Amino acid sequence: MTKNSNFYPVILAGGRGTRFWPLSRRKRAKQLLALDGKQTMIQQTVARLLPLAAPAKFWIITNDDLRPAILRQLPRLPKIQVMAEPAGRNTAPAIGLAAFLLLRQDPDAVIGMFPSDHVIADEKRFRETLERGIAIASAGENIVVLGIRPTRPETGYGYIEAGGSFEGALRVRRFTEKPDAPTAARFLQAGNYFWNSGMFLWSARTLADALREHLPKTAPLLENIAATFGTRKFPDTFRKIYPKCENISVDYAVLEPRSAKGEQAGKIFCLPADFGWNDLGSWTALHEHHTAKRNPPEGNLITAASNFVLNAEGNYIHAPGKFVAAVGVRDVVVVETDDALLITTRQHAQDVGKIVKHLDQKKLHKLT
Amino acid sequence: MTKNSNFYPVILAGGRGTRFWPLSRRKRAKQLLALDGKQTMIQQTVARLLPLAAPAKFWIITNDDLRPAILRQLPRLPKIQVMAEPAGRNTAPAIGLAAFLLLRQDPDAVIGMFPSDHVIADEKRFRETLERGIAIASAGENIVVLGIRPTRPETGYGYIEAGGSFEGALRVRRFTEKPDAPTAARFLQAGNYFWNSGMFLWSARTLADALREHLPKTAPLLENIAATFGTRKFPDTFRKIYPKCENISVDYAVLEPRSAKGEQAGKIFCLPADFGWNDLGSWTALHEHHTAKRNPPEGNLITAASNFVLNAEGNYIHAPGKFVAAVGVRDVVVVETDDALLITTRQHAQDVGKIVKHLDQKKLHKLT
Repeated sequence: MTKNSNFYPVILAGGRGTRFWPLSRRKRAKQLLALDGKQTMIQQTVARLLPLAAPAKFWIITNDDLRPAILRQLPRLPKIQVMAEPAGRNTAPAIGLAAFLLLRQDPDAVIGMFPSDHVIADEKRFRETLERGIAIASAGENIVVLGIRPTRPETGYGYIEAGGSFEGALRVRRFTEKPDAPTAARFLQAGNYFWNSGMFLWSARTLADALREHLPKTAPLLENIAATFGTRKFPDTFRKIYPKCENISVDYAVLEPRSAKGEQAGKIFCLPADFGWNDLGSWTALHEHHTAKRNPPEGNLITAASNFVLNAEGNYIHAPGKFVAAVGVRDVVVVETDDALLITTRQHAQDVGKIVKHLDQKKLHKLT
Repeated sequence: MTKNSNFYPVILAGGRGTRFWPLSRRKRAKQLLALDGKQTMIQQTVARLLPLAAPAKFWIITNDDLRPAILRQLPRLPKIQVMAEPAGRNTAPAIGLAAFLLLRQDPDAVIGMFPSDHVIADEKRFRETLERGIAIASAGENIVVLGIRPTRPETGYGYIEAGGSFEGALRVRRFTEKPDAPTAARFLQAGNYFWNSGMFLWSARTLADALREHLPKTAPLLENIAATFGTRKFPDTFRKIYPKCENISVDYAVLEPRSAKGEQAGKIFCLPADFGWNDLGSWTALHEHHTAKRNPPEGNLITAASNFVLNAEGNYIHAPGKFVAAVGVRDVVVVETDDALLITTRQHAQDVGKIVKHLDQKKLHKLT
């Protein structure tokens, strides 16, 4: 593995991850939690990319709530490149700003856009895939997306429809929104559909041009901000102008219209990824991720000082420091923090975000 | 209601109440918990008897673990009459010692024996029942037991079979141990069976004579201890001799052999009690006790700083000081303390005692 001198990882770390409440909070979002091992999700994200890029080449886009904790967790990264958006504007302005910034530094920059809160089991294969992607993205106006081979008819993800193959990659025919269940089942069976991982590779120039084409109002705002970077004017400019950008995802702003140009003209390529990806979207997903290696897989996952289990199966219990006794319960999720106690089931864990909505509505900010 | 000058309540408060773990502990047994309202169970037990007996006439038999808390909870009672058994010897020696002590103070003493951890809804009717019982117990060698009219085929209680009626009471034909389910169903249908409440009335003399007859080895030991009460010798005598007493319940030692003499000769009377009795034998019983008044009765019972409930029903959750979120769960019991977290179901709450057994075996005394 060699460090590619033009490769710049841009990690999007502004998400709130409310489905891991009560562990995740505004100032301690999912990406800052060690849900999978000793390192936090964002530390893992950086660590698995370090063989490809020196610390000085990382950029992180986050918000004011999370920036202090990210700086503590990633002390080797340049502070100035851990940027706090003055307001959340979804992924298009975030990655777009990175493109205009990097274009000024390195006209041949290739950007990798990465979520900060996913799990990847086979890091070696992940980096091999990235290197192939970087090569494709370096040429012409190509855009590369890492597609996850679907293993179930998931309705919670966007899908990529792949077409003809090209230099070991597949041409992207279409991006589709989250499908309904019958459509998801059809996608799974068809064999040429992939989950959209949210991981993209493109040159800074390609992305900048795409933004100028597809977001003609927002692109100049981002260029103005980028022009002040490193000067005294920057904080004020960033704070005033960035909120004026359109609030839109890069998928919707760039990838969908680009793919609509057709499989050949779109120049979007999907690299099928087989590196054990999991976005850990809920307590249930976390439980399954940890117990999948077991036999039988339906075990208990208990974080506690010590525990006693009697006729209890398939439970996820997080109460560090306490003695936990689980008697006769099945498939429950119980998560305890200093100020809160979540009690739900593996089946209902996707509704945990509704608790945070309730807390937001009631202005119970201490708990969010 | 008038205070009966010969009536002495003797409250047995040495039980451990392990089925309310993790709230109940060796030094904070069930009777010391406020499971039903603001007063603790033992405070309620005393309070409902105070219209019948002045504080100076109460005796409490407990153990060293619980005595300090009982003294704190019941500051008006004479300290010397809150007695800590040097070793648990079941109810016969405990109530027997009280009989020999009271016989020396008041030859006409009528003793009421009361558990310390039951709930009684209609206190007025309870006291009216007691007054009738005291009148019966004052005469001859009569023994009075308060019988609870069964409302379900409970297999966890002892039963009393009643015979002919006598002066508004029923003669007791037989005491029976905990029945199996078909037997319990037959008892319920028969109409002349009552649950043994553990509440008895008898004169000190009757009880002393019965002990001399049925426990001829233990009775003299108790008399020896009682003879030193109030002297410097007492603590040492109590500590050395009491553990030599037989470890046996008063039901088994006195009431069963006495009833075997026959309905007439036995002179045991059952007073059917209709005062809303509940022994709160488990978290499930506590949940049902509190939600029975509701419509529908299958509600949630949540003790928390505040809470959010979504698609959750029939749960008992105790986490004071925390924000509790219950999403999609049904019939679970979750109880949180500083050092422990219990997760079970209403159906399995009777197994909570097994957790304490496990903790005892593992010598995890901090948690018991």
